[in-house]
Amino acid sequence: MHTIDQYRESFLEELNKITTEKEPKNLYEPINYILQLGGKRLRPILALMTADVFETDFKKAIPAAMAVEVFHNFSLVHDDIMDDAPLRRGKATVHEKWDINTGILSGDAMLIEAYRLLEQYDGEQYKKLNVLFSTTALQVCEGQQYDVDFETRDDVTIPEYLKMIEYKTAVLVAAAMKMGAIIAETTVENEDLIYDFGKNLGIAFQLQDDYLDAFGDPKTFGKQVGGDIIENKKTYLYLKALELSSNAEQNSLDQLFSIQPTNNNDKIATVKVIFEESKADVATKQAIEDYTQKAFNVLDKLEIPATNKEALKQFGLWLMTRKV
Amino acid sequence: MHTIDQYRESFLEELNKITTEKEPKNLYEPINYILQLGGKRLRPILALMTADVFETDFKKAIPAAMAVEVFHNFSLVHDDIMDDAPLRRGKATVHEKWDINTGILSGDAMLIEAYRLLEQYDGEQYKKLNVLFSTTALQVCEGQQYDVDFETRDDVTIPEYLKMIEYKTAVLVAAAMKMGAIIAETTVENEDLIYDFGKNLGIAFQLQDDYLDAFGDPKTFGKQVGGDIIENKKTYLYLKALELSSNAEQNSLDQLFSIQPTNNNDKIATVKVIFEESKADVATKQAIEDYTQKAFNVLDKLEIPATNKEALKQFGLWLMTRKV
Repeated sequence: MHTIDQYRESFLEELNKITTEKEPKNLYEPINYILQLGGKRLRPILALMTADVFETDFKKAIPAAMAVEVFHNFSLVHDDIMDDAPLRRGKATVHEKWDINTGILSGDAMLIEAYRLLEQYDGEQYKKLNVLFSTTALQVCEGQQYDVDFETRDDVTIPEYLKMIEYKTAVLVAAAMKMGAIIAETTVENEDLIYDFGKNLGIAFQLQDDYLDAFGDPKTFGKQVGGDIIENKKTYLYLKALELSSNAEQNSLDQLFSIQPTNNNDKIATVKVIFEESKADVATKQAIEDYTQKAFNVLDKLEIPATNKEALKQFGLWLMTRKV
Repeated sequence: MHTIDQYRESFLEELNKITTEKEPKNLYEPINYILQLGGKRLRPILALMTADVFETDFKKAIPAAMAVEVFHNFSLVHDDIMDDAPLRRGKATVHEKWDINTGILSGDAMLIEAYRLLEQYDGEQYKKLNVLFSTTALQVCEGQQYDVDFETRDDVTIPEYLKMIEYKTAVLVAAAMKMGAIIAETTVENEDLIYDFGKNLGIAFQLQDDYLDAFGDPKTFGKQVGGDIIENKKTYLYLKALELSSNAEQNSLDQLFSIQPTNNNDKIATVKVIFEESKADVATKQAIEDYTQKAFNVLDKLEIPATNKEALKQFGLWLMTRKV
């Protein structure tokens, strides 16, 4: 097994190679820009790691890892237009730096480029990767649509929310890992198990995001703490607080999530108190632990060397204790 | 060989089957809407016809024909956002009927659905179809980007314009036909020849569109005559008129294509006079004929029965004499 840094380094080396000077510039420059903006590179790293876990040269999984990362960035470019987001990773979003039309068209090209990266595989493997990729890509679109729909609904349930983050976030993590397994030519059972591992880890990851958004340390979090509260986002914390609160607190939360004050500090502070008093924070931490444990339970069934299981577990633990 | 109506009927029958009640509704309803809006169904018909021309059951090409039509409609949905177009085939565009975000996301889902339709093929055929599809899809995006870029440029050359319409329009017609050939498992030579036929026919088709936009009969044309002139579009007619005009006419044309009067009738009439006096209209008709002839020349090299060649030729002639 290799280290996370080794996966990342190999991936980034390849990423720099695909940065081209193709024409028309207005189509390809935004693609280079967003791909070079950084990020944790979580999905491609997991694709490479999984190939390694199933004892194949992890570099064989680089084109698939690249496809997943290009797809992920496509979804960011289009989501940022839909969310009217000015910043991504501290820099201007594509539609801000260029314009909405550029964001739409460069995004489209990235989705196609992602498919093209899979052309480096052949035969049944090629088809398996493509089928998985398309199924996943469509689920991500469905997840994004649910997310948009939830903005204007006030009866979103926790199971609905969990399905939304499963589609919008977790299935791509799961698919990245399954791609590594497909490339390693392991058993279908192992493919499905690692998909399950990735899916549960992905849900835990997103719940962790929800938690950190409210309770992260401003010094280490990187993003603005309370961003979800400012945007009235119905996260797990919010839905759980509604469930666990008294009527009075429910009304107060409802009311706070219908306003957009110029100074958000009071709103953020009050909402966080409700999150804490209702013990929604504790419930969220519990849910993160449960999904992480669900992922780890999958590991027991995997037919791989113990050290490789340990590597997956350590990655999961690292992910779940992150502050960023 | 079957008739155009038989291809269309088989295609539409299948199209009605894929219209589903899937969730989330806000993602899938706009897809059903745009796919049911009608249109000539030129590309899918050509895919089916080509399979027939190469003596294979044309119904085998239905999934590929569907993929091409779904892709074409994806590009219409996203282009209509970029062009701020309120109407498509006389009905509200997707982003008008819903909103821009819906247009973006439903379009994305259509692009993915197009790839999924190809999953009905297997092995090398599956990969060949996918590779052709992705190459073509990316060229369509590049064509659209050139089209956008040309809006703000005043030094567009005729070769540049021809490349733009080749990418934006002709390669998808060509690919639709090549897909039919791939499915019929004909020779690689035949695949390439029919691609060439489709490409030249596609360019002729687009030039015909440019011509009809200015000189079509308002009674039969269906769209508003002069639409391109109103929008100051640098079509073949316009570029040819600039090339063939005197300095005075060039300046007058330049000036007319920089204004957006409330009443366009005078502008349209004056521009059409310049098109005629410069003989840009004759030159455009000549170009249409040249590209049609280029397509027909390809037919001589094809190894297929004479009646099948005749069917392709008749379709080409029908396309080039259309008034709509």
